[in-house]
Amino acid sequence: MSISSSARAFIDLNCDLGESYGAYAKGRDEEVLKLVSSANIACGFHAGDPAVMRNTVRLCLENGVSIGAHPGLPDLQGFGRREIRITPDEAYEMTLYQIGALDAFVRAEGGRLHHVKPHGALYNMAARDRLLAEAIAEAVLRFDTSLLLYGLSGSELMAAGKRAGLAVVSEVFADRCYRPDGSLVPRSEPYAVIHDCEAAVAQALQMATAGTVRASDGSLVPIEAQTVCIHGDGPQAVGFAAQLRTALTAAGIGIAAPDGRL
Amino acid sequence: MSISSSARAFIDLNCDLGESYGAYAKGRDEEVLKLVSSANIACGFHAGDPAVMRNTVRLCLENGVSIGAHPGLPDLQGFGRREIRITPDEAYEMTLYQIGALDAFVRAEGGRLHHVKPHGALYNMAARDRLLAEAIAEAVLRFDTSLLLYGLSGSELMAAGKRAGLAVVSEVFADRCYRPDGSLVPRSEPYAVIHDCEAAVAQALQMATAGTVRASDGSLVPIEAQTVCIHGDGPQAVGFAAQLRTALTAAGIGIAAPDGRL
Amino acid sequence: MSISSSARAFIDLNCDLGESYGAYAKGRDEEVLKLVSSANIACGFHAGDPAVMRNTVRLCLENGVSIGAHPGLPDLQGFGRREIRITPDEAYEMTLYQIGALDAFVRAEGGRLHHVKPHGALYNMAARDRLLAEAIAEAVLRFDTSLLLYGLSGSELMAAGKRAGLAVVSEVFADRCYRPDGSLVPRSEPYAVIHDCEAAVAQALQMATAGTVRASDGSLVPIEAQTVCIHGDGPQAVGFAAQLRTALTAAGIGIAAPDGRL
Amino acid sequence: MSISSSARAFIDLNCDLGESYGAYAKGRDEEVLKLVSSANIACGFHAGDPAVMRNTVRLCLENGVSIGAHPGLPDLQGFGRREIRITPDEAYEMTLYQIGALDAFVRAEGGRLHHVKPHGALYNMAARDRLLAEAIAEAVLRFDTSLLLYGLSGSELMAAGKRAGLAVVSEVFADRCYRPDGSLVPRSEPYAVIHDCEAAVAQALQMATAGTVRASDGSLVPIEAQTVCIHGDGPQAVGFAAQLRTALTAAGIGIAAPDGRL
Repeated sequence: MSISSSARAFIDLNCDLGESYGAYAKGRDEEVLKLVSSANIACGFHAGDPAVMRNTVRLCLENGVSIGAHPGLPDLQGFGRREIRITPDEAYEMTLYQIGALDAFVRAEGGRLHHVKPHGALYNMAARDRLLAEAIAEAVLRFDTSLLLYGLSGSELMAAGKRAGLAVVSEVFADRCYRPDGSLVPRSEPYAVIHDCEAAVAQALQMATAGTVRASDGSLVPIEAQTVCIHGDGPQAVGFAAQLRTALTAAGIGIAAPDGRL
Repeated sequence: MSISSSARAFIDLNCDLGESYGAYAKGRDEEVLKLVSSANIACGFHAGDPAVMRNTVRLCLENGVSIGAHPGLPDLQGFGRREIRITPDEAYEMTLYQIGALDAFVRAEGGRLHHVKPHGALYNMAARDRLLAEAIAEAVLRFDTSLLLYGLSGSELMAAGKRAGLAVVSEVFADRCYRPDGSLVPRSEPYAVIHDCEAAVAQALQMATAGTVRASDGSLVPIEAQTVCIHGDGPQAVGFAAQLRTALTAAGIGIAAPDGRL
Repeated sequence: MSISSSARAFIDLNCDLGESYGAYAKGRDEEVLKLVSSANIACGFHAGDPAVMRNTVRLCLENGVSIGAHPGLPDLQGFGRREIRITPDEAYEMTLYQIGALDAFVRAEGGRLHHVKPHGALYNMAARDRLLAEAIAEAVLRFDTSLLLYGLSGSELMAAGKRAGLAVVSEVFADRCYRPDGSLVPRSEPYAVIHDCEAAVAQALQMATAGTVRASDGSLVPIEAQTVCIHGDGPQAVGFAAQLRTALTAAGIGIAAPDGRL
Repeated sequence: MSISSSARAFIDLNCDLGESYGAYAKGRDEEVLKLVSSANIACGFHAGDPAVMRNTVRLCLENGVSIGAHPGLPDLQGFGRREIRITPDEAYEMTLYQIGALDAFVRAEGGRLHHVKPHGALYNMAARDRLLAEAIAEAVLRFDTSLLLYGLSGSELMAAGKRAGLAVVSEVFADRCYRPDGSLVPRSEPYAVIHDCEAAVAQALQMATAGTVRASDGSLVPIEAQTVCIHGDGPQAVGFAAQLRTALTAAGIGIAAPDGRL
């Protein structure tokens, strides 16, 4: 099952939130919450702690932002960005654990969990490794079949989610370059990131309205674009998010979290 | 709300399980599961990891043993036994987090969470500190009002649970000496532990049948005894549990987990 | 053995540094290093990680700032500020471990470790608990008898250090109020902190020049003042440190780390 | 610099020790210490804690067993066996940190650190990745140029150690099958492990006396064999170690830790 992306009247803007930890503050969560329609909240493995999770859940509910669990690898020091060679069972278990932990705060505050999006290295590994992707989809499904699964557009994770019967939400990046096969140009290569704000907004608009992206070789590639990833760290990121939101709205595209339960 | 303890036909035997961690095995869970009616499963803070939690939940379901979350302080090295000066908010948050994490595995395996029992230093602190006790009761209540709260008989935690409207289950120890006020003789004092198996079984029987215990000064003290704590480490502990179970059954007392939902 | 404090021509300004962790930045280390004569570097238990330790050691050496190990309780989430009920053996072991870890970076960069100052709750516990104080002094002594031990002026830690034969350095606070017995007014009480910059500088000057402090009851109390603690978080803290340094220099007091090896 | 392996009159038997953690006991350290000449002590990242390190160092000194640091990846749950994609800088920093931490206990007990051997996934990654190998060798060198570096015979780590000017000690496995190029048959393949005790002892003897091993394709391959890895977990492992020691002694080969400082 997938949510149709053609002739889209609405698109989702999502952001990773709740990445503070103990005495360590991170991100401009309160500002970003005014701009996005859904949030991925860290669950304590790569970032976040129980106090941060509670506060962030409250903030999301106050701002009417849909709440997702953002499970990551157990690596606070590496912020979940270093790949760890885990088994599919481990991926299943750490995903399920973290979904449950976050959901407890959502329930306690009277909300309802909306989606799951893996973080960092877990996201990347699940994008290309079919077994890890299936394990993560299985964890989501077993916890709650009505949860949405967010993942890289065109990835193994999206495919696994569909096979499992989950509603999936394909994520695109306004400021990343794409290859002709629809995958991202790795950050290790030159021209991986679009630094020009105008160009990034234009790319997002094209993905949202036409369902295509201009790839690194100049070709026009079809792409599912149901949610756009917004970064919440630093003043420039927040400024860009505001700019993107304005441009999308001006183009007649509403900003709203997808509802897989319809 | 409390479950009546007079003229008891049934008593619960509970044990802490799922205390292994990664490559570290601990406890004789499979043997103990044949003897108890309810299990408190470690949730990853003082012991346990997502793989251990998954396996232990499965084992409990296979054995028809009621599953409780066993939240502890975030101190794997100290096994949750070292007191950490936390605030009530922190107690609330760490309890809620761990309940949610364990519940995810219970849901995923098709079971239903039955109770919550704090572990180690958190248990002891909640027994004597009213604010911590209330915070823990609040976490249980907000997660699921039908969950049972296990705690030290006569403690602040039991009082807080009752005030919150939770069904509480008063725990007693067969092998620990009691003071005239119904509290435990601290382990730091002599005569804190009953080393004689016969005496320990006799004490448990008396608590279960008469609702009284002979205190350290020889006086007879009333005590709520709805569940007896069984230790699962070491061959002697398992042997004692078997002996206790036999004695209770012979005395016409059934072994069964309480059902607060009735 | 103690370093004489009367008619002082020099005083030490020390600051806690290297408190970042992974993706989490904390403190204004580069600015503060221009102002202090000694630095206490976090060792990975309450803050800091191996990369941060390496960088901070380098920065200290480049700035000619004396390097101390800053061991804390194993509680990153609580930033080492929550008391954990540890045994003297545990205090010895965690202190020794962290001294060794930091010293490795100092050695590798061609420097020499200068002192040890416990952090946060470990500092406070060692200030009032004789057995913990002795355990920490023992760890310092066994690692290197020539290391200086920094601690709260008039505390059990200073007494234990002296008994052990260590050179101790008594720390005072410019912005904290003192009781008539020379101890700090706890933060939980009103009037614990001096918010007025002028008053704080004046207190530091008086402690440095006269070896006395005006206590909360108005009495004049003798106090050992060999090092003044500077906070490195926030622009105000750095500004105050600069102001204090200027005032001390203007009063003819040099800023220099003590040398216990003389 | 390398220690000559031809016409060897002595060989080293090494074992990983100190792998307990908090309430979790692991290994038969006291038995194994009677059989080996050198020990690799876990440093708190993949196993071990400060209390375990202190006790294990003492045990080694009492038994006259040479002490090595056994740094691992920061992954207690995975016991350091899951590969984490770290940078050479991170490898350098985590190795240096752990060497320093262990060395503190050795110094405090009046001993002297003898060698460093990476653990688990860090060992394997350093065996095949030149940059990681160089980073680890650099950490050892910067800490103490006289330390020996243990690693897989024929590996990148041994090559990097030699280039750095360290004395290296080539490790072989009695119970693992070798490929024609001198590398180990991966555990994921059939016939990776020699389960027959006699065959394993025979292989060790041949490596120790002739400097050759029969590879998986039947060819005879030259191999540096300066130390043999002994496993300390389980009764069979200890029994095998005793059998191996007896066989080596019977063949006129002494059991002794190498001394790179000669």
